[in-house]
Amino acid sequence: MVVRRPGGRSARVRAAVHQAVTELVAERGYGKFTVADVAARAGVADTSVYRRWGDLEELTADVVITWLTRTSPVPDTGTLDGDLRTYAANVVREADGPAGPAVLRLVIALAAAGETGARAREQFLAERSRQLRTMLDRARARGEEAPEVADVVDQILAPVYVRSLFGMGPLTGELADDLVDRMLGTPGRGPS
Amino acid sequence: MVVRRPGGRSARVRAAVHQAVTELVAERGYGKFTVADVAARAGVADTSVYRRWGDLEELTADVVITWLTRTSPVPDTGTLDGDLRTYAANVVREADGPAGPAVLRLVIALAAAGETGARAREQFLAERSRQLRTMLDRARARGEEAPEVADVVDQILAPVYVRSLFGMGPLTGELADDLVDRMLGTPGRGPS
Repeated sequence: MVVRRPGGRSARVRAAVHQAVTELVAERGYGKFTVADVAARAGVADTSVYRRWGDLEELTADVVITWLTRTSPVPDTGTLDGDLRTYAANVVREADGPAGPAVLRLVIALAAAGETGARAREQFLAERSRQLRTMLDRARARGEEAPEVADVVDQILAPVYVRSLFGMGPLTGELADDLVDRMLGTPGRGPS
Repeated sequence: MVVRRPGGRSARVRAAVHQAVTELVAERGYGKFTVADVAARAGVADTSVYRRWGDLEELTADVVITWLTRTSPVPDTGTLDGDLRTYAANVVREADGPAGPAVLRLVIALAAAGETGARAREQFLAERSRQLRTMLDRARARGEEAPEVADVVDQILAPVYVRSLFGMGPLTGELADDLVDRMLGTPGRGPS
């Protein structure tokens, strides 16, 4: 007898649908497939997808957020320095991995897809900002001086993402540490 | 009688071919058209394209470089501060313009196109690095302390490009100045 945890079927459907989206994005690009294509590939009914996600944009945002939250969870090491180094190392590792550039290109495709993609993109950015803000607020609550979310985006995410997207390696742990060193050397921005 | 400057026809062919590439990239995406498609749209013979550019990758690199050099020329104002502010303002303005995101997406498509795009991407990055290095070397020759090309990429280009690509505005002149302030506040990287 196979014991299944509650929600097992639901989790399997979700995984199959996410996998289908990822494959279709890689094969055709965003905007070139429908909910029906996703459902067919995942082996589920169209109505299951609509009921759970509403539409393709919501589904795509869910795929991106899930991937990022799993591969680059926002750390809680007890110090801002530790959190930022762990976070930066994760960002670098994932951007350098097989799925990283594909996910970045997906977000870019959403941003370029006009209104249809705008909501998914907003949702993704808002959720990611919320996760980072939690980490920075924890640091402030401990009495540490912390940068803004925009600083983390500009000084850690942006250099890593641009190197990944433009194929300007190497993406190494050393790069992650250098970026954090530079950011922490200039808290609050600008010359101090 | 129409007076034509020497090279007039050649310049017109080049402009028509560049225009055709830009349109085909926008319509189909990189990797979805051939030299023959470009030639047909530009109204020139295939052989003219091959003779002048060699192949589609060389041609695409030429299109990207030409666009960047025209829209964001490397400035020579007499001071590093002035050069960087002019350069950053140009980068922001172009990334915010109608063609900017399309050109960025083209470079990304080249980076993702495996070996076929790798040469074009290398050529583009090498040329752009060369232009930036010239600007920074001029500053050093005047006795100014100057950052490395990688610093300019990480601290000015990357934040602007990521904001443009992910649709995280606003891209303003104030952003350009903030990025330069932050970079010049930390010469040589890291805590000082």
